[in-house]
Amino acid sequence: MSKKIQLGTKILSANEEYAQQNSKLLREKGKYCLNMISSPGSGKTTILTRTITDLKGRLRIGVIEGDIQTQLDTDRIRATEAPAVQINTNGSCHLSAAQVSSALAQLPLADIDLVIVENVGNLVCPSAFELGEDGKVVVLSVAEGDDKPAKYPAIFSKSKVLLINKVDLLPSGAVDFDVEKVETDARRLNKDIQIFRVSAKTGQGTNGWYDWLIKTVGRKD
Amino acid sequence: MSKKIQLGTKILSANEEYAQQNSKLLREKGKYCLNMISSPGSGKTTILTRTITDLKGRLRIGVIEGDIQTQLDTDRIRATEAPAVQINTNGSCHLSAAQVSSALAQLPLADIDLVIVENVGNLVCPSAFELGEDGKVVVLSVAEGDDKPAKYPAIFSKSKVLLINKVDLLPSGAVDFDVEKVETDARRLNKDIQIFRVSAKTGQGTNGWYDWLIKTVGRKD
Repeated sequence: MSKKIQLGTKILSANEEYAQQNSKLLREKGKYCLNMISSPGSGKTTILTRTITDLKGRLRIGVIEGDIQTQLDTDRIRATEAPAVQINTNGSCHLSAAQVSSALAQLPLADIDLVIVENVGNLVCPSAFELGEDGKVVVLSVAEGDDKPAKYPAIFSKSKVLLINKVDLLPSGAVDFDVEKVETDARRLNKDIQIFRVSAKTGQGTNGWYDWLIKTVGRKD
Repeated sequence: MSKKIQLGTKILSANEEYAQQNSKLLREKGKYCLNMISSPGSGKTTILTRTITDLKGRLRIGVIEGDIQTQLDTDRIRATEAPAVQINTNGSCHLSAAQVSSALAQLPLADIDLVIVENVGNLVCPSAFELGEDGKVVVLSVAEGDDKPAKYPAIFSKSKVLLINKVDLLPSGAVDFDVEKVETDARRLNKDIQIFRVSAKTGQGTNGWYDWLIKTVGRKD
C-alpha cells in the first residue's frame, strides 16, 4: 500500500517538474496560459473558435489541442487562422506537462498573447495534472445536469473560471438545469470562482468572459 | 520505459483477477451484468430509474452506483425501490473490479435478474477496466456532439449497446447532432453494436432497449 502512494507521488513530481518549466517559459515570455477542462461535448472547441474570432485584433490566442485520437478539433481551430498544435494522447485520459512543453515549443509564442490548452474531454483526471498554466477554466453545459459541482468537486475547487455553456437551451425548458444551484454549489467549493453564463452557439453572455480574458491577460504583461 | 509497461500490465492483471471472480460468481448464480459508461451528464441514472420502473414485474434489476463523491445517484435509484449499493471512489476516475466484488456481496442477488453497474462519469478510463460484466452499454446524449465515436473510439468498440439519449432535444434543432453519422461511425468501429435512440425523460424509443434487455438476460438463464 505504501508503495502505491510513493509511486503516485513520483509520477506527479515528474509532471510537476515539466509544469514548472512551462510556467517559467511562459512567465519569461510574458504569455498567459489557461487550461480548459470539461466533459466530452460541453463545447470547449466551439467556445474557443468563437472567442478567437470575436477577439481578433484585441487578443492573439494560440491553442494547444489535446485529444485521445483525431485532429478534428485542431482543424476547427485552424479554420479561424489561429495557431494551433495538436497532441494526440493515444488513449491517455489527460494531457501531461511534458506534452504541453513540446507543444509550446511548436507555437509561435512571439505572435501570441494567450495560450489556451484544450484538455482531453474528461471532468476527472485532467484536474490532477498541472501543466504550468496560470489558471484553469471549467466548462459545464446545461445539458449535463446541475449536480456536477457536487459530484466532481475537484475541478470546480481548482478553477479560476466556470463557463456555464449552452444557456440557449434553457428557455425552452427542454433541459432541467438550475443555474442558481450550480453557481451556489461552485462558490461553496471555491469562493473566488468567476462564473459566466454563455452560449458559444449564439454568442449570448460571452462579453463578460471576453472582458475577463482581456483584463486578466493584460495584468500579466 | 519497459518498467512503465510492466507496471501497467500488473495493475490490469490484478484487476483482471477480481473481474474473473466477479464473472464466475455471476455465472454460478445465473445473473446477467451490464457495465454502463458515459460522460458526466449523459443521463445514465435517469435511464436506470426509468428502466427499473418500466420493467417492474418483468425484470428485477439491482444497481451498483459508482461515483467519485456523494450518494445522490443511489438515492435516486432507491426511490424506485430497486436494491442499490453505492461505491465512492474518492477521486478515482473509474470503478475497479475489486470495488464491484465487494458491492456484489452486498446486493441481494437471489432477488435480482440483472445487475447494472453505473460507472463513474467518464468516457475514457472506465473502458480500460473490466469488472466481470457480460457486456458494456455506452450512453451518448445528443447534446454532446456527433464527433464522439471518432474521438473516443475505445468505448464504442467494446460496447454491446449504444444508447443515444435525449433525442427529445432533436426536433427543435437546438442541438447540432447527426444521428446517422454517429450510428455509421459507431458501426464502423463495432459492426455488432446494438443502437437505440431513446429519451429517458419522455420514454421515447425505450421499448427497443427493454426488448433487448429481456431477450439478452433471458438467454443467460
